[in-house]
Amino acid sequence: MTSREDCLALDAHDPLAAFRTRFALPEGVVYLDGNSLGARPKVAAARAQSVIGEEWGNGLIRSWNDADWIGLPAKVGDKLGQLIGAAPGEVVACDSTSVNLFKLLSAAFVLRPGRRVLLTDRDNFPTDNYVAEGVAAFFDGKVEIRVLPAEEILAAIDQDVAVVSLTQVNYRTGRIYDMAKISAAATAMGALSLWDLSHSAGAIPVDLTGAGADLAVGCGYKYLNGGPGAPAYVFVPKRHHQAICQPISGWMGHAAPFEFSGDFRPAPGIGRMLSGTPPVIALALLECGLDIIIEAGMDALRVKSMALSDLFISLITQQCDGHGLELISPQDANLRGSQVSYSYENGFGAMQALIARGVIGDFRQPNVMRFGFAPLYVTHIDLWDAVQALRAVLVGAEWKKFPMRAGVVT
Amino acid sequence: MTSREDCLALDAHDPLAAFRTRFALPEGVVYLDGNSLGARPKVAAARAQSVIGEEWGNGLIRSWNDADWIGLPAKVGDKLGQLIGAAPGEVVACDSTSVNLFKLLSAAFVLRPGRRVLLTDRDNFPTDNYVAEGVAAFFDGKVEIRVLPAEEILAAIDQDVAVVSLTQVNYRTGRIYDMAKISAAATAMGALSLWDLSHSAGAIPVDLTGAGADLAVGCGYKYLNGGPGAPAYVFVPKRHHQAICQPISGWMGHAAPFEFSGDFRPAPGIGRMLSGTPPVIALALLECGLDIIIEAGMDALRVKSMALSDLFISLITQQCDGHGLELISPQDANLRGSQVSYSYENGFGAMQALIARGVIGDFRQPNVMRFGFAPLYVTHIDLWDAVQALRAVLVGAEWKKFPMRAGVVT
Repeated sequence: MTSREDCLALDAHDPLAAFRTRFALPEGVVYLDGNSLGARPKVAAARAQSVIGEEWGNGLIRSWNDADWIGLPAKVGDKLGQLIGAAPGEVVACDSTSVNLFKLLSAAFVLRPGRRVLLTDRDNFPTDNYVAEGVAAFFDGKVEIRVLPAEEILAAIDQDVAVVSLTQVNYRTGRIYDMAKISAAATAMGALSLWDLSHSAGAIPVDLTGAGADLAVGCGYKYLNGGPGAPAYVFVPKRHHQAICQPISGWMGHAAPFEFSGDFRPAPGIGRMLSGTPPVIALALLECGLDIIIEAGMDALRVKSMALSDLFISLITQQCDGHGLELISPQDANLRGSQVSYSYENGFGAMQALIARGVIGDFRQPNVMRFGFAPLYVTHIDLWDAVQALRAVLVGAEWKKFPMRAGVVT
Repeated sequence: MTSREDCLALDAHDPLAAFRTRFALPEGVVYLDGNSLGARPKVAAARAQSVIGEEWGNGLIRSWNDADWIGLPAKVGDKLGQLIGAAPGEVVACDSTSVNLFKLLSAAFVLRPGRRVLLTDRDNFPTDNYVAEGVAAFFDGKVEIRVLPAEEILAAIDQDVAVVSLTQVNYRTGRIYDMAKISAAATAMGALSLWDLSHSAGAIPVDLTGAGADLAVGCGYKYLNGGPGAPAYVFVPKRHHQAICQPISGWMGHAAPFEFSGDFRPAPGIGRMLSGTPPVIALALLECGLDIIIEAGMDALRVKSMALSDLFISLITQQCDGHGLELISPQDANLRGSQVSYSYENGFGAMQALIARGVIGDFRQPNVMRFGFAPLYVTHIDLWDAVQALRAVLVGAEWKKFPMRAGVVT
């Protein structure tokens, strides 16, 4: 049995404990939804004032040079690269995950002419498969989307496959794909591997280079703490830089945007993945989030993350047994991202009741209660308090007060 | 002859004079580059603090509902609609101009099957034509880009044309296309008209509905004062909502994004033009800029804008005659946006010298000095001071101190 005092002791010995003070978290809230929207680094407010007040307000147009706004997508991209095992010059920050995925999926079919299959997971994050549908419609009959259960993906990589498009950490269950194994299988068959890192970057150590991954995208507003709707990013390793071309060939992807020449000439490196004018303020805020993670170090974060999620599972077993919650995340922490999910028939109402008690997780259709553990700011006692609150919700059947509603962002 | 006192008198009688105090402009600067990056509304700093501190920091994930983040693209879109003659529900704010243009150009060929021509202007903003190239490459031989001089566009609209893609106000010269005439010609031939409003929204009254325009995009960071890299927007009139589909079918364009269903089902209205998660902070800042323009009123802004650009031209004639500057903008203010451009063989150095003197305009290849007049915050005495400075630059040959450099954002 783990006690409240045990949790306090774990916090007292947590080498990352001080990082919590770098985040602005409201009083009375246990925040277990950093996998959906990361908390705010305190420094983000000051950085916003500096970019808005000084760089925009006083620097005006001069800040494209003087504050190196023009270099932000690459600068932030290189910091992202440190977290995902990419070399400098292999990542740029830009656009949304959906837009970047569109670019890379389209590019994949150009890199692998004659191959028609886009292989993906039935339980992939929905937008990834929606974007795949858009790409297929656009290629007008020349692309076939093959959607399979996760466990059948590896065997299904054959010579018809142009690209295997997967999310490394499943958004619902937290299960981690074996990126190295699947990337190697893709390479062996001449296919490309494309990884969505939205639920892994900042949550687990990622080694794109070591895995031999071909392409990747990811989102900036979850574990990276970049702010609501933060810019996303694109990874393309140097070996593909010469051949890759993406369809949204806007001026920021041009070799010389300010030449204003009539014809598009793609930038020589990762810059060719850019399209429009970079979102300067949002990029600066994303950089604030990245700096903290780099300082803490992904290995230390992973150690704490695994301890947190193991603790949560054991506390749930201890406190909430017999209420019908079923763990749908892997039992083995090595196979889990930084989240734990339970299916529960009254999950929607139970999560709303928890939120009313100040414990914020989220709900995913049809019946999943999802809890994320951002190790930079979640404490062991947070988890004790969260599980006590959940126990009270279950014992008191508080979920009855919150009937399912449509149209609510959950 | 116009005197300094005349300029002061014009300012004293300017009904929009008070709006200048709503913007943060640095001391000692005459800012004539609001056509490239609009100045900062003072209120933007407070709004950023509120969104970052309160909505993100304290509200966390709850703000998608409680602060209606999810409704921001439509809310900001409707405010944009007021400035460009669109009905509520016909505009959304999202992504960059390049990405939005890609969506609409792609959509145009789906709306006009069997037609292969994308007709555009040789002097269109480069990114517009770069994106057209990307769309054509993507449609793999089924799209032909026909690039003509502006004066030949009208006659070239025939039954092969799927879409006529033009920028309403030319970025270099400021010349205004006759949107109603060209849109009508497109409609008569069964083609679609697509307008880039980046240099017109907030600068001149735009009436998309009155002109019968089919599609439009535009940028948020020029005359709309939305901040560096502000979100762009998409206009699709209701008559096209049912038939239009765009290729970047991300979750925010889904009829029910939080259903997390396996198949993409486009939102019924303009929402289907969305792709990824909205850039919340940037949208809030754009809204600050729009609110001021709506309060001032586009008609009043246009009256002042025309007066400013006429004044500038007459002061240049008066003060800088004989130095080789040649007006490349239309003489008639009715044919000009809110900018005036001169070709000048030493234009690069002359503009750098002007900037060193605190008068900020910009330079466009190969030899264009461009001056924008944002009537919300540019005064008549600003123009007097600017032209005096330019005269000093020319008389002193100060342009010699600034040789042309590559790689500089101008």
